[in-house]
Parts: sequence; structure tokens; C-alpha cells
Amino acid sequence: MPSTIPTLTLEDARRLITAAETKAEAIGQPMCIAVVDAGGNLLAFERMTNAWIGSIDIAQKKAFTSRAFDITTKDLGANSQSGDQFFGIHASNGGRIMIFAGGLPIVMEGKVIGAIGVSGGSGEQDHAVAEAGLARL
Amino acid sequence: MPSTIPTLTLEDARRLITAAETKAEAIGQPMCIAVVDAGGNLLAFERMTNAWIGSIDIAQKKAFTSRAFDITTKDLGANSQSGDQFFGIHASNGGRIMIFAGGLPIVMEGKVIGAIGVSGGSGEQDHAVAEAGLARL
Amino acid sequence: MPSTIPTLTLEDARRLITAAETKAEAIGQPMCIAVVDAGGNLLAFERMTNAWIGSIDIAQKKAFTSRAFDITTKDLGANSQSGDQFFGIHASNGGRIMIFAGGLPIVMEGKVIGAIGVSGGSGEQDHAVAEAGLARL
Amino acid sequence: MPSTIPTLTLEDARRLITAAETKAEAIGQPMCIAVVDAGGNLLAFERMTNAWIGSIDIAQKKAFTSRAFDITTKDLGANSQSGDQFFGIHASNGGRIMIFAGGLPIVMEGKVIGAIGVSGGSGEQDHAVAEAGLARL
Repeated sequence: MPSTIPTLTLEDARRLITAAETKAEAIGQPMCIAVVDAGGNLLAFERMTNAWIGSIDIAQKKAFTSRAFDITTKDLGANSQSGDQFFGIHASNGGRIMIFAGGLPIVMEGKVIGAIGVSGGSGEQDHAVAEAGLARL
Repeated sequence: MPSTIPTLTLEDARRLITAAETKAEAIGQPMCIAVVDAGGNLLAFERMTNAWIGSIDIAQKKAFTSRAFDITTKDLGANSQSGDQFFGIHASNGGRIMIFAGGLPIVMEGKVIGAIGVSGGSGEQDHAVAEAGLARL
Repeated sequence: MPSTIPTLTLEDARRLITAAETKAEAIGQPMCIAVVDAGGNLLAFERMTNAWIGSIDIAQKKAFTSRAFDITTKDLGANSQSGDQFFGIHASNGGRIMIFAGGLPIVMEGKVIGAIGVSGGSGEQDHAVAEAGLARL
Repeated sequence: MPSTIPTLTLEDARRLITAAETKAEAIGQPMCIAVVDAGGNLLAFERMTNAWIGSIDIAQKKAFTSRAFDITTKDLGANSQSGDQFFGIHASNGGRIMIFAGGLPIVMEGKVIGAIGVSGGSGEQDHAVAEAGLARL
């Protein structure tokens, strides 16, 4: 008999994005924000006015990466530099793996049920904006 | 001096998506809805509960296609079947071209300023939901 | 609050594959068999002795396609020929969409919780082997 | 007359996977495990419950890489860091090359007849689980 897991809803995703945008506005850096579900598939995405168009892809890939390995992309990156145990991981999964800060898993009842990915500023800014989104959930 | 064109805002995109979702709910078919700007770049995206995960990609590509050729994907499709003048166009642009209904250009003051792409039902349903989104603008 | 859905287990996937292989042996046609979960992500795969190596990819993509659109690839194919409403859909989703028989959704409690994809023979054979797999669940 | 080489069977692959999974359970880290034949083509794959979905791709690529160069991915990685003689090799073969631990060739009668690839934990864990699989053969 199949087991059950909690599911991330579109409504959840909207709240995450709104909270992240509020933080992005507060620091004055427009961002792209993406939310994926437990399967790593996109639920919702927004690009703020003047956010980089190159960030459209990166935000989505940070979200995917965080769910793909149940880890922040910041922590993954810290183990994926030349000489590290996961160096080269960014060549896997059809180029969908991002190894710099801005992607965070969404955890509920001890299970990763999705992830948020933010791109548009420095790694530190992206990570902070993603955290602000999670805080709302 | 550079000329100016009206710009589609994130706020516009949200209104388009909300209107499209209202229509999708009315016909009882969950959809993926994407909005791109004049550059063909994604502004906002939402996947409704139970919408097909295969539609995530298609909705975005329908929006891109509509802006890429300033035409509805329904009309483009009508000229892209085997034997038609544009047959094979779906292999161009890195596979981003969709040639069936659901993508519509967003026109303002006679200029195409973006596009909406909808996927999740029959071609007719997708087109109708996209039209409902446009009607709101 | 997140809703819950049934989850397809690795044990389920193994039983599906074993049943499908029994059928493939019965008709004397070696097959590749893939099972994906609700997120469209691969759970298990087997290639029978002498099955085509070109089928490794196709079996997995049939499974993905069936879950991506909650439909058999046979039925999807019937609507995706030149002139049909979904013609061109095989160019979407990064080339992962297969539009010929052999992919079937796995349904439990009215929800699609995954899919099976079979490749190695004629469309009819692939579909029959996939059905034999499902029958076991 | 063509020479003959031993062939890795699906039955072999299953035994390798089962042994690897036993080890993975023993160390409490769920894994994805893939086995390829002498042609580098996938024979069998399993994703254990709660294994990372990003590992589906990596396990298969580690197996391919090990057979592609008849070397463990751990040893290949040791020569593929920035400044090393094979730096950049992970961009070859369509992105199918993985340069961190977890892939091991399967050798019989002095010939490489396939490979196993494991992904789901640290590089050390992945390598140990792959070795446990090989030990069974």
C-alpha cells in the first residue's frame, strides 16, 4: 500500500513568492523567484521589474537543485568546487544543477516537499531572499 | 532618441493569469499559464492544482512562440502541418516552438508587447482560457 | 495545509516490471521497462536480454509522457498526428515526449501516482506488456 | 571468427543492485543504483525510497563514465580537477561524464564487461556501496 506525503500547493507557492519579493524590495534588488514541488516540477514563478533575464533560468534551476539533493545550493556549492567531493555535479541532470547560493528546500513534517530558488543579486542576497520566503511558510 | 513602447508589467501578468485561472476553473480543467514580455522572456507562471506536469514546459513555449512570431499558436499551427509552408518550424529555436492552440500575443497600441501561453486541456480549451486572460487586459 | 496523495513505492515498481517481463516472455519479444513516480522521476528500469538498446531511452520517455499528461501514449499519439490538435507536442519537454503506444498511467484512488513505459516491439506489443504490468498492481 | 567476451546479464545486474542496496541500508543512506553493460548501455536501475531525485541521472552517468574510460570515477576525478590533465572532461560526451566517486567498472576474466554507478550520499559512501555490489559478483 502506498504511503502518503504532504503536498505543496499553488497557494503555498504564492505566499512564498510574495514574502520573498517583499524582502527583495527591502534590500532594493529585483529578483526572479521560482517554487517547485516534491517532484522538482515548477509550481509558480515571478520576475520582478528590472530583474536580470538571465536569472529566469537560474532561479528555476536553483529550486530544482535544492529539491534534487534536499540541500541548499549554498551548501552544495561548498562541496562542489575543484578538488571537492562533488566537483563536476553541475554537469549532471541536463545542465539543471546550480551550485551557488539561492536555492533552499521546503521542509514540512520532516519531509522535503519542494524548494524555492532565487536569482537576481549576490549569492548572499539571493539566499536571504529565499530564506525570507521560507519564513512565511 | 530611442522610441518607446508600452511595457508589460509583472502586475499585468498577474492579472492575466488570474483571469485565465478563473476561466479554467469555470470549465473545470486545471491549466498551466505563462506570460512572457516583449523580449519573449518569462514574466510569471502558475500551475493550477492537478494540471499536467508536461504542461509546465508547453505553456511557457506557447507564450514564447506567440511572441517569437507575433501570431497565435493556433494560426501558426494551421500553416505548420505536413505539406504546409512552415512544416518543421517546431524543430527550430532549440525546440521552443509549439504549433498548437493556446498561445496568444498581447497587443497594445498596435504593438506586440508580450504573449500568454496556456496548456492543460484540449487545444480549444487552452485557446479559450488564454483569450479570457487577454480580455482582462 | 498541504494535502496528501498516495505514493508509488520501489516495491510496487518491481512488481510491475516483473509482471510486464512475464508477458514479454510469453509473447517472445524482449523489452525495456521503466516505472516513474508521481513527479515523473524514474523509480526502476530493466532491459531484458536482447532488447533493443534504442529502447532504453524510449521506455523511460514513454513512462514520463504518460505521467506528464495523465494519458496512455497510444491515446496521446492518436491526437498528435499531422493535422491533429496536439501535433508538435513531441518537440516539447526537451524531447522527452513519446507519441506512440507503450506508456500507461498508474492510477490509485482516482489519482495518477506514476506511469509505466515499455519499448521493444510493435506498438501493440508494448502496450500489451505495459497493461500486463498494471494488471499486477 | 569473432572472439567472445563474457556478457553481463540482467540477472547479474539485479544481484549487484540487491547487494548494493543491502549495503546502503546498512549505512542508512538511500541510494540510486545503475548497471550498464559492455556497450555502456543501461541494464537495470533502482531508486531506493527517499533517495535524491537528482541522483537518478548521476548514478546512470557514473556507470556510463566508468565503462567509457574503464576506470573508477573516483580515480578519473583525481585527474580531472582544475589544473589536471583531464580537466574539462566532464563537458564531453554530451554531459554524461561524472568525475566524482561512485562509479566502478565490472571486470571479468580481465575484461571490463560493464559498470556500476551509485549516487545518494557522500563520495565515500557511494563508492563503498558500489564496491559492495561488485563484491557480490
